[in-house]
Amino acid sequence: MRYDGRETGEELRQLKITRDFIKYPQGSVLIEMGDTKVICTAMIEDKVPQFLKGSGSGWVSAQYAMLPAANATRKQRDIDRLKLDGRSAEIQRLIGRSLRAAVDLKALGERTVWIDCDVIQADGGTRVTSINGGFIALYDAVGTLISEGALRRDPIKNFVGAVSLGIVDDEILADLCYHEDSRAQVDMNVVLTSAGEFVEVQTTGEGRAIRRDEMSKLLELAEGSVRQIIGIEKEVLGYRK
Amino acid sequence: MRYDGRETGEELRQLKITRDFIKYPQGSVLIEMGDTKVICTAMIEDKVPQFLKGSGSGWVSAQYAMLPAANATRKQRDIDRLKLDGRSAEIQRLIGRSLRAAVDLKALGERTVWIDCDVIQADGGTRVTSINGGFIALYDAVGTLISEGALRRDPIKNFVGAVSLGIVDDEILADLCYHEDSRAQVDMNVVLTSAGEFVEVQTTGEGRAIRRDEMSKLLELAEGSVRQIIGIEKEVLGYRK
Amino acid sequence: MRYDGRETGEELRQLKITRDFIKYPQGSVLIEMGDTKVICTAMIEDKVPQFLKGSGSGWVSAQYAMLPAANATRKQRDIDRLKLDGRSAEIQRLIGRSLRAAVDLKALGERTVWIDCDVIQADGGTRVTSINGGFIALYDAVGTLISEGALRRDPIKNFVGAVSLGIVDDEILADLCYHEDSRAQVDMNVVLTSAGEFVEVQTTGEGRAIRRDEMSKLLELAEGSVRQIIGIEKEVLGYRK
Amino acid sequence: MRYDGRETGEELRQLKITRDFIKYPQGSVLIEMGDTKVICTAMIEDKVPQFLKGSGSGWVSAQYAMLPAANATRKQRDIDRLKLDGRSAEIQRLIGRSLRAAVDLKALGERTVWIDCDVIQADGGTRVTSINGGFIALYDAVGTLISEGALRRDPIKNFVGAVSLGIVDDEILADLCYHEDSRAQVDMNVVLTSAGEFVEVQTTGEGRAIRRDEMSKLLELAEGSVRQIIGIEKEVLGYRK
Amino acid sequence: MRYDGRETGEELRQLKITRDFIKYPQGSVLIEMGDTKVICTAMIEDKVPQFLKGSGSGWVSAQYAMLPAANATRKQRDIDRLKLDGRSAEIQRLIGRSLRAAVDLKALGERTVWIDCDVIQADGGTRVTSINGGFIALYDAVGTLISEGALRRDPIKNFVGAVSLGIVDDEILADLCYHEDSRAQVDMNVVLTSAGEFVEVQTTGEGRAIRRDEMSKLLELAEGSVRQIIGIEKEVLGYRK
Amino acid sequence: MRYDGRETGEELRQLKITRDFIKYPQGSVLIEMGDTKVICTAMIEDKVPQFLKGSGSGWVSAQYAMLPAANATRKQRDIDRLKLDGRSAEIQRLIGRSLRAAVDLKALGERTVWIDCDVIQADGGTRVTSINGGFIALYDAVGTLISEGALRRDPIKNFVGAVSLGIVDDEILADLCYHEDSRAQVDMNVVLTSAGEFVEVQTTGEGRAIRRDEMSKLLELAEGSVRQIIGIEKEVLGYRK
Repeated sequence: MRYDGRETGEELRQLKITRDFIKYPQGSVLIEMGDTKVICTAMIEDKVPQFLKGSGSGWVSAQYAMLPAANATRKQRDIDRLKLDGRSAEIQRLIGRSLRAAVDLKALGERTVWIDCDVIQADGGTRVTSINGGFIALYDAVGTLISEGALRRDPIKNFVGAVSLGIVDDEILADLCYHEDSRAQVDMNVVLTSAGEFVEVQTTGEGRAIRRDEMSKLLELAEGSVRQIIGIEKEVLGYRK
Repeated sequence: MRYDGRETGEELRQLKITRDFIKYPQGSVLIEMGDTKVICTAMIEDKVPQFLKGSGSGWVSAQYAMLPAANATRKQRDIDRLKLDGRSAEIQRLIGRSLRAAVDLKALGERTVWIDCDVIQADGGTRVTSINGGFIALYDAVGTLISEGALRRDPIKNFVGAVSLGIVDDEILADLCYHEDSRAQVDMNVVLTSAGEFVEVQTTGEGRAIRRDEMSKLLELAEGSVRQIIGIEKEVLGYRK
Repeated sequence: MRYDGRETGEELRQLKITRDFIKYPQGSVLIEMGDTKVICTAMIEDKVPQFLKGSGSGWVSAQYAMLPAANATRKQRDIDRLKLDGRSAEIQRLIGRSLRAAVDLKALGERTVWIDCDVIQADGGTRVTSINGGFIALYDAVGTLISEGALRRDPIKNFVGAVSLGIVDDEILADLCYHEDSRAQVDMNVVLTSAGEFVEVQTTGEGRAIRRDEMSKLLELAEGSVRQIIGIEKEVLGYRK
Repeated sequence: MRYDGRETGEELRQLKITRDFIKYPQGSVLIEMGDTKVICTAMIEDKVPQFLKGSGSGWVSAQYAMLPAANATRKQRDIDRLKLDGRSAEIQRLIGRSLRAAVDLKALGERTVWIDCDVIQADGGTRVTSINGGFIALYDAVGTLISEGALRRDPIKNFVGAVSLGIVDDEILADLCYHEDSRAQVDMNVVLTSAGEFVEVQTTGEGRAIRRDEMSKLLELAEGSVRQIIGIEKEVLGYRK
Repeated sequence: MRYDGRETGEELRQLKITRDFIKYPQGSVLIEMGDTKVICTAMIEDKVPQFLKGSGSGWVSAQYAMLPAANATRKQRDIDRLKLDGRSAEIQRLIGRSLRAAVDLKALGERTVWIDCDVIQADGGTRVTSINGGFIALYDAVGTLISEGALRRDPIKNFVGAVSLGIVDDEILADLCYHEDSRAQVDMNVVLTSAGEFVEVQTTGEGRAIRRDEMSKLLELAEGSVRQIIGIEKEVLGYRK
Repeated sequence: MRYDGRETGEELRQLKITRDFIKYPQGSVLIEMGDTKVICTAMIEDKVPQFLKGSGSGWVSAQYAMLPAANATRKQRDIDRLKLDGRSAEIQRLIGRSLRAAVDLKALGERTVWIDCDVIQADGGTRVTSINGGFIALYDAVGTLISEGALRRDPIKNFVGAVSLGIVDDEILADLCYHEDSRAQVDMNVVLTSAGEFVEVQTTGEGRAIRRDEMSKLLELAEGSVRQIIGIEKEVLGYRK
């Protein structure tokens, strides 16, 4: 029996996605994975970073932040320390890479999709929840472009879904809540496509190193978990493909 | 007939307050004034700024920010410009002063209540909505201290409520939505106590200057509007006094 | 009898304006209101902020700072904390709005007038003294443009004048010195035009809230005080209109 | 045949480690992996971060930077942009986690070992080369503490070694040089212990997603490569255990 | 005949020193060297930098800045660029070293004297004028301590005076105005004690290098010029020694 | 007998210059002056600062930094304090001016040569060692332009060389090591051309002031020392002129 009442290591928390949560951006969701809640928005800008100018290619850029009250202890805003939190820097690079893997950037054209992920309540797994919510927002924003006739073909190449996993008390668990995460010996975040291929694998054995057989089990569990998550994503979106 | 369908200049938009919106802070609300939506949280810290150390007095400190997608055009995060937005600096000072006017800081003891106001959707009046939401969060946070037996007496001296007003096409309006606000000749924000006394008046006639008789009408309209708002606040809180 | 020897609440301190205080800017004054001394300069730049490019309109932008030794306790420079002081941010926005209310920005053409207000000695009322001094500097800078034949018509729409007021020991006072200001229950800053209309009203009842009748008396006192101040401004300038 | 003349995908570039490269720090190396050159230093400070004070535990903190001329295009210094490069932030967190996995922090006592990795010439694999060089510097710094009698037992739990891998033109390669790296479809960095267990796995399929069988081959190749690297580390150190 | 009417290369501009220019600091002057005008203040703080704590020694710390309108072109404030101007950094280090050379830091006791030099109008020689003005402010601040009985002996060891020199059109000139300075091939700033010994010599031959015989003539001219300046300083102060 | 075994005050430490130390920049050296070691690189950029655009003139811009472990006590990186170290600011301005004195900027054309000096081990004299190493890197970078046929004439006007000197225990010494430097009463840095003319003289008598006869001896010793250093520079370069 897990801390929050789940009965198996494989069981995921309830995933709830509310689309069109904010009225201005082309895509926006409130995504909830258990008690973790993130507002993800996607806004389209008609220009690209310097290195892509004139290339015909678009870009997907992600930012990640937490409200000060999203955790048990108040987190000082980055602007008060004049520094982007190192952890946030790491996470938003992960989100950006993961979502770009879902998009044919050529088909997007010279546009940037800005994905903003703001965690309003954190209970473990905020980065993977941001990827899942960011994907829906991105999908909707691209859908707006399609329905406006601005794109010749759909730039979404495949769905992506993400899950966190870990080893706690030598047991492999999926979708850790904060209480489990804070005691985890091993921490893993995995992003997969709808074809079941790996986009990102980030594993940290800061507590203890990971045996090869555990690694295989973790990856296998990730595959199954993300299959479920992408299933829910497709359902929520009434999948257009 | 007003832009969003209201029929008179006095009519306020619907005010909706959802308490306990975030699970960690001692007080938290989602406050909605029409389409303006702000998450306001109150967290208590057991220390005070340098200038109050050893004074026996507490403090209320406010911060105000906007999600990048809260407006029609994406707003770059402060940390990306390494500067707190000047408008945010001005607003959070206003929120702080307004809420401190509601509290007997001696009765609070040497504690800081951190009020964080994060606008998730902006449609005019974000600063007054933050004050109203911040007050509820503050009230609930102080309530937690009281129920824990940490305070000898209730430090809430009086309710505060806030409203925005303006002159648009030479007509006086209460609670401007963004469309009205962007065309206003005169802009006013007023904070009052439950005793009907003024805490803050901020008027700007950048479009055109304000005649004395208009000033009187604006202040009168503010009194009536805030009376309604404080009425709703009391109802929502099941007023403990 | 007031702290600095003034005999009534209405009495203003001596206002002294020295024009052409610095040789480079198109307009510059040393303004002294009692012991409060501010250097105000106006420099014209032949470009405008991004949002005005191509609009044909000009802009007036203000900055406010204090020398470290302007107060009894040395104030660390902003650059040493890497943050613009929140109070300065608030004040310079007030100065900018107040001075823009004096100018027909269309008539100014695509130019920015930079108003720099540097307090060299602070004894209460630095923000209103900055507005008064900034107006004279602005007037002189615009005068330079006129005499150079660069403008078709005078962009100065009206004079503006500003005064601080407060309630100290339940008594209403105009033009508070620092000693009075530090004990004030209520603090007000008012900017009016030469037509006696209100440009800015900023009132704070952080010490105690303000009754409606007090509000009226404060506004009335402000009207009279600013009338005197604008009188002195006109005299100093040998009013060109 | 690979770009730099290596004959197989498994072949590593020459690894050269010069100990005691800088005279002040307790540990320091110049590490060269082909043309990638990094100065890694380890300095011991007799205090720990706030969250460890009084815990009896020590800490290992890493920083990563590049000289402006380490790449073909000059890289502006972080201080000129006033921002830590996001990539550097990500990398130094990886180095810190990897090296902490080599140390029994309790046995280290309340000390911080500062690992500074400064890339003086970059030709692919700078992060893994930093981990390998940082480990040697850390080992030597800890050795100084041991020889001074400051530690009761050796806090080094195990060796760590790191390697980069990738898929280029659908071929799996170990230890990519810059030319290979810039064309890689898949990018992986793996850190293992001397016991052959995984400390960190970071895989990115930004170019294309990774099949499960490729993932297995990559991990297997990582195991073999790091075994060689740790072999060289032990030789260089005349392994004290 | 020089640009500003002086008849010889040795002739100095008029030096005017107004003491007690600002009412709060223990020492303050407005110093004018021709059209160069600097406000120099000295404030005493009862603590010292970290490296002097417990040493019994005091410190003199200097800061240098310019008002935006002090030059023909408006200078953006440091805080707007978030960087201390490199030239200011260099100058304030020079001022600090020069003034510390005038003080027996042991006799000062564990106090810091903060010297703030704010250039309100620049016409060449602002750094040496700051040193001269800073010395008077320092002397007066120390005099306050002496008259309060806070010091057992006078910490002023000797007077210091400073002058700028240069080579313009191959002619050696003292006390360059801006017009001369902007065309100088060689630029020199020299600080001497009242005993005629050198405290600082800063020479730059960026336009052309300096022959040994020119160097001797420059140093000789510096000696004579500073002798005059220290003469004026003594007169202004009614020299207490 | 000096601290590091040198027998006379005139004796210089061994000067060792390794060219082509980094493969990417057009010029790069590892320069060692005794135990002081600096990596100096020169990279050419085909644009110039704003104030030179369209002038036909080039620029030489220098940056100076220290690795955290270059001294006995770890030095926090500038980016962690968000401020360029004041001492670094001063030094890099000195390096820039010194190297520009070696170059005919018109002959360089509209290019910037970026000189980066990164001290990897500091044992006194890092700024003069940076100038000497920077000159070699600059010479080589310019040589690359010449050999590519990009320049019509050699922009190197003359060699420059630099040395540090000081007065320790009333004795005049050349090329102080850290141990001597930390006890010096007087500190001097001198840059000369191959024609024996002075480019920069920076003397500080913070410990005690300098007599005129000492000043002459210091300058004379500087001339002889730099003559030796330029001799070595010419030898290392197989002087092309």
